[in-house]
Amino acid sequence: MTIYEIITKKKRNAELSTEEINWVTAGYTSGAIPDYQMSALLMAICFSSLSDRETADLTMAMAHSGDMLKPDTGGFNVDKHSTGGVGDKTTLICAPIAAACGVFVPKMSGRGLGHTGGTIDKLESIAGFRTALGYDEFIGNVRKAGLAISGQTGELVPADKKIYALRNATATVDSIPLICSSIMSKKLASGADGIVLDVKVGDGAFMKTVPEAEKLARLMVEVGTRAGRKCSALLTDMSKPLGRTVGNALEVMEAIEALKGNAPKDLHEISVSAAAEMLFTAGKGTAAECISMAEKAISDGSALEKLREMINLQGGDPRVIDDYGFFPKAKTQREIFAEKDGYICGISCEKTGIISMKLGAGRLTKESGIDLSAGIVFEKTVGDYVKKGEKLAVLHTSSECDLAEISEEFRGVFRYGEKQEVPEEKNVIKIIKGY
Amino acid sequence: MTIYEIITKKKRNAELSTEEINWVTAGYTSGAIPDYQMSALLMAICFSSLSDRETADLTMAMAHSGDMLKPDTGGFNVDKHSTGGVGDKTTLICAPIAAACGVFVPKMSGRGLGHTGGTIDKLESIAGFRTALGYDEFIGNVRKAGLAISGQTGELVPADKKIYALRNATATVDSIPLICSSIMSKKLASGADGIVLDVKVGDGAFMKTVPEAEKLARLMVEVGTRAGRKCSALLTDMSKPLGRTVGNALEVMEAIEALKGNAPKDLHEISVSAAAEMLFTAGKGTAAECISMAEKAISDGSALEKLREMINLQGGDPRVIDDYGFFPKAKTQREIFAEKDGYICGISCEKTGIISMKLGAGRLTKESGIDLSAGIVFEKTVGDYVKKGEKLAVLHTSSECDLAEISEEFRGVFRYGEKQEVPEEKNVIKIIKGY
Repeated sequence: MTIYEIITKKKRNAELSTEEINWVTAGYTSGAIPDYQMSALLMAICFSSLSDRETADLTMAMAHSGDMLKPDTGGFNVDKHSTGGVGDKTTLICAPIAAACGVFVPKMSGRGLGHTGGTIDKLESIAGFRTALGYDEFIGNVRKAGLAISGQTGELVPADKKIYALRNATATVDSIPLICSSIMSKKLASGADGIVLDVKVGDGAFMKTVPEAEKLARLMVEVGTRAGRKCSALLTDMSKPLGRTVGNALEVMEAIEALKGNAPKDLHEISVSAAAEMLFTAGKGTAAECISMAEKAISDGSALEKLREMINLQGGDPRVIDDYGFFPKAKTQREIFAEKDGYICGISCEKTGIISMKLGAGRLTKESGIDLSAGIVFEKTVGDYVKKGEKLAVLHTSSECDLAEISEEFRGVFRYGEKQEVPEEKNVIKIIKGY
Repeated sequence: MTIYEIITKKKRNAELSTEEINWVTAGYTSGAIPDYQMSALLMAICFSSLSDRETADLTMAMAHSGDMLKPDTGGFNVDKHSTGGVGDKTTLICAPIAAACGVFVPKMSGRGLGHTGGTIDKLESIAGFRTALGYDEFIGNVRKAGLAISGQTGELVPADKKIYALRNATATVDSIPLICSSIMSKKLASGADGIVLDVKVGDGAFMKTVPEAEKLARLMVEVGTRAGRKCSALLTDMSKPLGRTVGNALEVMEAIEALKGNAPKDLHEISVSAAAEMLFTAGKGTAAECISMAEKAISDGSALEKLREMINLQGGDPRVIDDYGFFPKAKTQREIFAEKDGYICGISCEKTGIISMKLGAGRLTKESGIDLSAGIVFEKTVGDYVKKGEKLAVLHTSSECDLAEISEEFRGVFRYGEKQEVPEEKNVIKIIKGY
């Protein structure tokens, strides 16, 4: 077996054997196969694609490149993953709901690059909250509270770290089988029994159309199921920012509000659906029963109590739940007003993300710092009628940024129309179940 | 301009601008662009291909990465290039013919990897023959004798050296635009006014079918013509070894015999056609006149005298021309006999090449030595009827190799049939002229 032969096979659109995929993955991770050969193979995969079997093999080979965890919580462990979108604080809502309903949620999460931080960054806007838990503490907390959210522990999927960095440098990111293997290898290695995937669709997401998002979702569910996990995926809308806030502290506040029953419709629907899927994978009831249980965990306050318990266990200041004054507050707040009368027909997700980053809420490079107070709060959303001079949103920042210029740019985020274009309100577009 | 954007463009099958191609070529040659990004781009080119304009730009950019020579011979300089085949000693025949007819042939040639050495290796089987001429001596010899054959002098096309090595390691060799740019950048940089290309077709060649060979030939002629050179290409048969010998000294002997008028039909026809094209590019007459001139240079002995003159000027022992005893002689010769009665319907080029290398005539790696005496002499060829026990060929070697095993393997080279399958005798399949 040589890498040359394997590249040639994939270039000719032939199927690689399990042995070949294992050999390449191990060889590249160890350094035996150099970057320049791996990047040629990755580009050939972008063109020739991988079969479901090859994708499953690659995912397993990557998962096995490091530790394969078995979270010993004593219960059914469910993991949840989002492919990422603007204003996506769903994890902070559905994880406490699931835990409140008796599912164990040992959730490892990452920091973010781009418009805002990742879940870990967001949680760090709670004073004292520790996100670097040792594995024993992490699992111990899950046993106690039903959930813990921590940065990665252990040597998890070194193959993915290396392959992802190479893909990022060689324009080989947008291959559905490679995206699948990157996401699912980490989910499989972290050892959950159930995996719920939230695949975002729209201009603010990596997948711009429903068919491609569905392709990715089906492939991930297939790979997860082949690996013996209960797996399902939601396709959810990302044609406008999710909820009313974008940022770190601002999103945590909105998540807390959601657990108090005050979420905007889109955020509520997606969070409850994701939570219900988590319950369903754990065998807690029928689809309808799981939805009811999730709703009840909000209305009876039990999900909010789970969040409080987690904050306590991870050293955070639980007073944030009742008093948002304990969150970092931006030095500067700039109100943005409507320039004319009309209906808001669209809010550009992509532009919102860019502005959020410019305000300091996201990182441009891994080394960049992050302004936890920064972000955007929308007062109006798609479908609303506004009169000239009405407040549309508030920009928050503590950073040295050119607010005049950013405000000007932010006006371009809104699309106005003469009449109300009521978008077909489908927040959860589809649910794909692997069982 | 970033390499990431350029890779992305080519991956999406968009056309790269001249500036982008120049920038990538210069950046990779200087080391500013790393191998792993270049190999991703090369693989994307294998799938998305390059337009004629992009190929011409890449070829020029590569040519300009090093010295651009202007051979000051005082006449019209013609270069000749073969894409390579088994038993291909054509250059040793057509170059002296062209020189005898008044064309200047400053030919830089390479060493070979594979079944035999390159033209330079072959010539070194003449005792004393120097193939590493300085550029002034090289051009001086052309002025005196009309031809010189030397290894490369100067810093010629460093971009090609680097790109070719990378292609060779990443299975990105078989892209017609990349093959074209590799060959033509060297031809353009060496500064010939006329370029004659011999594109081999068949199982012993890189191009297996006429359509793909024609595609390459047309592209090379197009690129040469765009660069202001007189350019034409022959498509010639490589479905069986060319002539009767494969090896280094053995092939030089056959070339000398050919200049004495004793070539097998295929070798004669291809050599005369290539020589005639060289004359035609130099404006020596009509196509028919050029063929007659080439034939005459053989029959009147003037081409043989040109070879003798070149050998003399490059320090070789000219006695080899009249007495083959001055060539290195293999220590061992093994005769191979027919195993049954029948017609020879095929001689596998590819297998012949592998056996030639095993006998020591070719190099497996750049560092390998070469056995100049080694090779194969065919006594029978395709179309001949043989009786069991008749001599088919003689294997020559001075190397430590397992002759019993090789002889056994060699028997598989021949395909027998009940009746004579007379192949459509087309040695020169097509000629493509760029003017």
